[in-house]
Amino acid sequence: MNKFMDKDFLLDTESAKKLFHEYAENMPICDYHCHLSPQEIYENEQPSDISQLWLSGDHYKWRAMRSCGVDEKYCTGDATPKEKFLKFGETLGWCIGNPLYHWAHIELQRYFGIDTPLSAKTAEDIYERANKVISEGDFRPQTLIEKSNVKFVCTTDDPIDDLKYHKLLAQQDLPFRVLPSFRPDKALNIENDGFVEYIEKLGEVTNRKIKDITGVINALCERADYFNEVGCKVSDQAFNYVPYNFEDSAGKAFEKALKGKELTQGEIDAYKTCIMLYLGAKYKRLGWAMEIHIGAMRNNNTAMFNKLGADVGFDSVGDCEIAQPLSRYLDKLCDGDCLPKTILFNLNDKDNTVLATMLGNFQSSEAAGKIQFGPAWWFLDTMDGMTAQMKSLANLGVLGKFIGMETDSRSFTSYGRHEYFRRIMCRLIGRWVEDGWYADDDEMLKQIIQGICYNNAIEYFKF
Amino acid sequence: MNKFMDKDFLLDTESAKKLFHEYAENMPICDYHCHLSPQEIYENEQPSDISQLWLSGDHYKWRAMRSCGVDEKYCTGDATPKEKFLKFGETLGWCIGNPLYHWAHIELQRYFGIDTPLSAKTAEDIYERANKVISEGDFRPQTLIEKSNVKFVCTTDDPIDDLKYHKLLAQQDLPFRVLPSFRPDKALNIENDGFVEYIEKLGEVTNRKIKDITGVINALCERADYFNEVGCKVSDQAFNYVPYNFEDSAGKAFEKALKGKELTQGEIDAYKTCIMLYLGAKYKRLGWAMEIHIGAMRNNNTAMFNKLGADVGFDSVGDCEIAQPLSRYLDKLCDGDCLPKTILFNLNDKDNTVLATMLGNFQSSEAAGKIQFGPAWWFLDTMDGMTAQMKSLANLGVLGKFIGMETDSRSFTSYGRHEYFRRIMCRLIGRWVEDGWYADDDEMLKQIIQGICYNNAIEYFKF
Amino acid sequence: MNKFMDKDFLLDTESAKKLFHEYAENMPICDYHCHLSPQEIYENEQPSDISQLWLSGDHYKWRAMRSCGVDEKYCTGDATPKEKFLKFGETLGWCIGNPLYHWAHIELQRYFGIDTPLSAKTAEDIYERANKVISEGDFRPQTLIEKSNVKFVCTTDDPIDDLKYHKLLAQQDLPFRVLPSFRPDKALNIENDGFVEYIEKLGEVTNRKIKDITGVINALCERADYFNEVGCKVSDQAFNYVPYNFEDSAGKAFEKALKGKELTQGEIDAYKTCIMLYLGAKYKRLGWAMEIHIGAMRNNNTAMFNKLGADVGFDSVGDCEIAQPLSRYLDKLCDGDCLPKTILFNLNDKDNTVLATMLGNFQSSEAAGKIQFGPAWWFLDTMDGMTAQMKSLANLGVLGKFIGMETDSRSFTSYGRHEYFRRIMCRLIGRWVEDGWYADDDEMLKQIIQGICYNNAIEYFKF
Repeated sequence: MNKFMDKDFLLDTESAKKLFHEYAENMPICDYHCHLSPQEIYENEQPSDISQLWLSGDHYKWRAMRSCGVDEKYCTGDATPKEKFLKFGETLGWCIGNPLYHWAHIELQRYFGIDTPLSAKTAEDIYERANKVISEGDFRPQTLIEKSNVKFVCTTDDPIDDLKYHKLLAQQDLPFRVLPSFRPDKALNIENDGFVEYIEKLGEVTNRKIKDITGVINALCERADYFNEVGCKVSDQAFNYVPYNFEDSAGKAFEKALKGKELTQGEIDAYKTCIMLYLGAKYKRLGWAMEIHIGAMRNNNTAMFNKLGADVGFDSVGDCEIAQPLSRYLDKLCDGDCLPKTILFNLNDKDNTVLATMLGNFQSSEAAGKIQFGPAWWFLDTMDGMTAQMKSLANLGVLGKFIGMETDSRSFTSYGRHEYFRRIMCRLIGRWVEDGWYADDDEMLKQIIQGICYNNAIEYFKF
Repeated sequence: MNKFMDKDFLLDTESAKKLFHEYAENMPICDYHCHLSPQEIYENEQPSDISQLWLSGDHYKWRAMRSCGVDEKYCTGDATPKEKFLKFGETLGWCIGNPLYHWAHIELQRYFGIDTPLSAKTAEDIYERANKVISEGDFRPQTLIEKSNVKFVCTTDDPIDDLKYHKLLAQQDLPFRVLPSFRPDKALNIENDGFVEYIEKLGEVTNRKIKDITGVINALCERADYFNEVGCKVSDQAFNYVPYNFEDSAGKAFEKALKGKELTQGEIDAYKTCIMLYLGAKYKRLGWAMEIHIGAMRNNNTAMFNKLGADVGFDSVGDCEIAQPLSRYLDKLCDGDCLPKTILFNLNDKDNTVLATMLGNFQSSEAAGKIQFGPAWWFLDTMDGMTAQMKSLANLGVLGKFIGMETDSRSFTSYGRHEYFRRIMCRLIGRWVEDGWYADDDEMLKQIIQGICYNNAIEYFKF
Repeated sequence: MNKFMDKDFLLDTESAKKLFHEYAENMPICDYHCHLSPQEIYENEQPSDISQLWLSGDHYKWRAMRSCGVDEKYCTGDATPKEKFLKFGETLGWCIGNPLYHWAHIELQRYFGIDTPLSAKTAEDIYERANKVISEGDFRPQTLIEKSNVKFVCTTDDPIDDLKYHKLLAQQDLPFRVLPSFRPDKALNIENDGFVEYIEKLGEVTNRKIKDITGVINALCERADYFNEVGCKVSDQAFNYVPYNFEDSAGKAFEKALKGKELTQGEIDAYKTCIMLYLGAKYKRLGWAMEIHIGAMRNNNTAMFNKLGADVGFDSVGDCEIAQPLSRYLDKLCDGDCLPKTILFNLNDKDNTVLATMLGNFQSSEAAGKIQFGPAWWFLDTMDGMTAQMKSLANLGVLGKFIGMETDSRSFTSYGRHEYFRRIMCRLIGRWVEDGWYADDDEMLKQIIQGICYNNAIEYFKF
């Protein structure tokens, strides 16, 4: 029996161990997509205790607790930090096979030096020990980022954001860079409450009164230029489904929306398509990469949404057909020579084959792997999800040109997920080498492993 | 090479062997969903031979035989019991990798003491030996249930059923309980032939003339109360797709149907949605669990349906989108505080990720794992299907709170499927322990294994 | 560590080695579906170099190169053969886990006697060595086919094809037969440019003026009879989605199309449904097998399509719902006793469960496995894709009656894919035997393995 999560955790062949320890383990991290707060990085405050660090904003952990029948009081409610941690400890014991179980123990080991498995029995003791480590050590965001060997952090920012904290951080002498990403979802979601108010704000920020769709496009492009000046290299959009309706009604749809009239699905899609075509072309001109995250179904629980708002653990995975509209959108850009580097992420693993083959339709000599299959993300950010994504990419595209992992995280200790990813990647590739499925060619393997860990992303994004 | 299906069948690590033999093997069975006949349990008759036991009603076996080109005569036709068994034996040899192959041999070993692999060569000999065992032993339903260590059997019953046999069985001093489940499909399927006649019967049983949708709802609720008195704790509904259309037309749709007019899809869905919302709320009030079985496409072969009727092996797996309507249905109940404990079953494994993440949207402190991901069922009741379902649940929910297996079966020797499930579950978890992916914590592992085998279900259903 | 792709490549148990080397390895090949050119087989010309053999028409290789950022010049452009090969060699090194990597090395080993792994470092040397082998040996199509132990080659031919080369080949004394397959896609795709012209040609070939849908049907049936005379036993149709609309508008739809009017989706589907029902019945009368390839999304890149045309590497995988229309189509034929032997292929692995269970709805005693689940194809023709297809079939149907692999290829050295398939099949079955999941019954295993390799196909198609 292997020891519990020791230095060779997940590495089940000699080849895997070698690839991980010699090539992957010490590579820096390029976290090209996350939800960290630039303000918190800038303010750089020491957390009060492990509950604040772990449980104050992590919807993965809350979901697990709710699934064990834990009362909301211990998740987002007014229980004490210790009560919350004890409930989480108890919960974790039932989470056999869940990545949360591995993430938590990687974090306990790496950041706290605690090797004890967390469960109901050990929760109180671990709570005390972890808090002692925090109180005696430095758990401020910048320290955690540096200690994790992170070189680039791309946050997720609204076009109307002034990027104040990015600018302040850029003036500091930090061993890593914090860059903004351009996420125009609110300007796209014409069907959502608050759209008109958002457009008004977008107008204010760009000193114009937005009266038509051209106004929206111009304002967004102006903000993209601003983001670009502050160092942005990546845009990001979240699609619950893939909108594609290439027809004239986009402009009219926008005007109807401004007047508060209800839109048809066709009009909504026409608007989104129009904006996304202009944005795609803009990204291309700026040399940015365009991330498209497909398939989340958000805020399913109305009662909890009304109580707690978004991003608190009531999202799940959708199952729309995506192949046709996605193909049409990318082709329309490509046909006009306006397709930027693009990273496609799916949240439903049933779409792995669709995405991994979609890439090949639009590759070009502009970049190695110009169209990327994004790493397994959110609900798929698991041993099985990551393995399936890499196998799909290997089978249907070129794994050696993969830009690898990002955390998509809101927590400063979540860089353990990069370690988790690298172990899984080395396990997979190590097995192939061990079994004689790939040449025992150290030079190529080193390039492949270190490429996927870090180098491919750096070359791809031109950081 | 391992011996053929010996005591360590499927258990490929020392951890798996320990978990199975020490914790799982001797746990009782709670078969919370099956299609056994309460009448047959009550009448408790000895089968004449193994063909009657195995081949008189098992559409899994008929399908396999037809797939080998065996004539219908040997499936549902007038061949002799021996001829049928010989054809089945011949068929089974080709069924490498099919669960039928394993189920048959588990049953031969456990109920008949026969270790010989069944194939064309051995079929005649096994036929004689098995029949000798039957003739010299006790193969009556009650004996088989008791011998299989079953404590609860939940049958599947129509709301208009008088539950006569359940009541008779309740008066007997049996070492197990046979409880009804409430399956209102015929009251839901407004588009089917025979709907009007069914509603008439429902009216008769509840002493009313049903003229409007309120009448349907009241009648169903009355029958649910009656089922509840007879010990029912579970409802079950089969959805070939997930209907959700929350609008006013439900009542009108019902009145059109009564008059024999054709309904639009929107009307059909409005009716089903309305009934399901009222039923969900009723189940909640009764403290029942609501099972939803999603995705069967039934009676695909019209010629055979006309000849043989339903449930004879001409069903297959559908591929509708389910995420959106299912989310809306559950949310509507949840928002009104009317969501009962719910168990979601999918027949298409492409939906694993959708269901396993859907759970998390609606969990609460009412029960550990209030919303459950039902075990791999029917076509997915295989080594691969069960493993995938448990991995999905582990990755995306909390495996430790899983209520585990039911047989969904029509056969009294099918309890071997619980053993099969337990071996696969111990194989999976044992591998994780062996590889150091979960703490080597015997106390927790015992609770998890025995919970999934039996204890979680008992606590969940409040039997 | 295993040696790189040695004689036991992919065979990870003693059982697998035995099954492959004793039973599978030397079985002949029945390539019942491919895209080889009968003209090239007849003309039987020696290739000039390995670039001509490997890179002049293989879109798999071009896609991989483009995915590495290689310029089109080196794919379909005017770079020299050597430049192209060097770029391919460089690309291949990055293709870890891709079947192309394995196919290329199997071909290098078997046809060229070259064991060196191909990568940037070795490409020049291998280019020279391979060309030397070609120049000193016989790499003509007929020699390659014979050397590969192929007994039957079914090409893919348009109904209007005169089959001249098939007839010429039939007159030669070859150790293999080259048979046509009937692929009526152009007569089905009423929505495509060029449909009217195609119908005109179809009329010319059959000496009639086609004015209505009856004319189309009669012409196609006449051509099917002609194909049958030349030895055809298989029809093939490619469906990007599954059309099914059984209503009267088919005839009118055709007349509208002839007049150049735009059709509704319903009309398009009505036309296709009508033709496919008549064709299905015709195939049944001829005793042919009907292949249906479902789910390719073709020519996604308009710019490249305009430059290079079809089948050059810009296709990907669609994700339409297929279960309902496919069931209705097969049932309609079956209900009229007109359903031919049918082979269902899916390009999206999310459909494995749908297809593998669809089979069982329509099996009969006409043939063992009358309805077949076609082998993993095109994008799924990978280790993972083939394993998943065989596991689905094993779990949900009867693997022992599987008719096995075809190449679907355009290259004369691609028979290595049959070896690849056989290794994977023996690996899978060998593991089951090794683990005691199937009886250690040599006689049955030999029948199963050799059946899947060759015998089942021969019996199925009645070659």
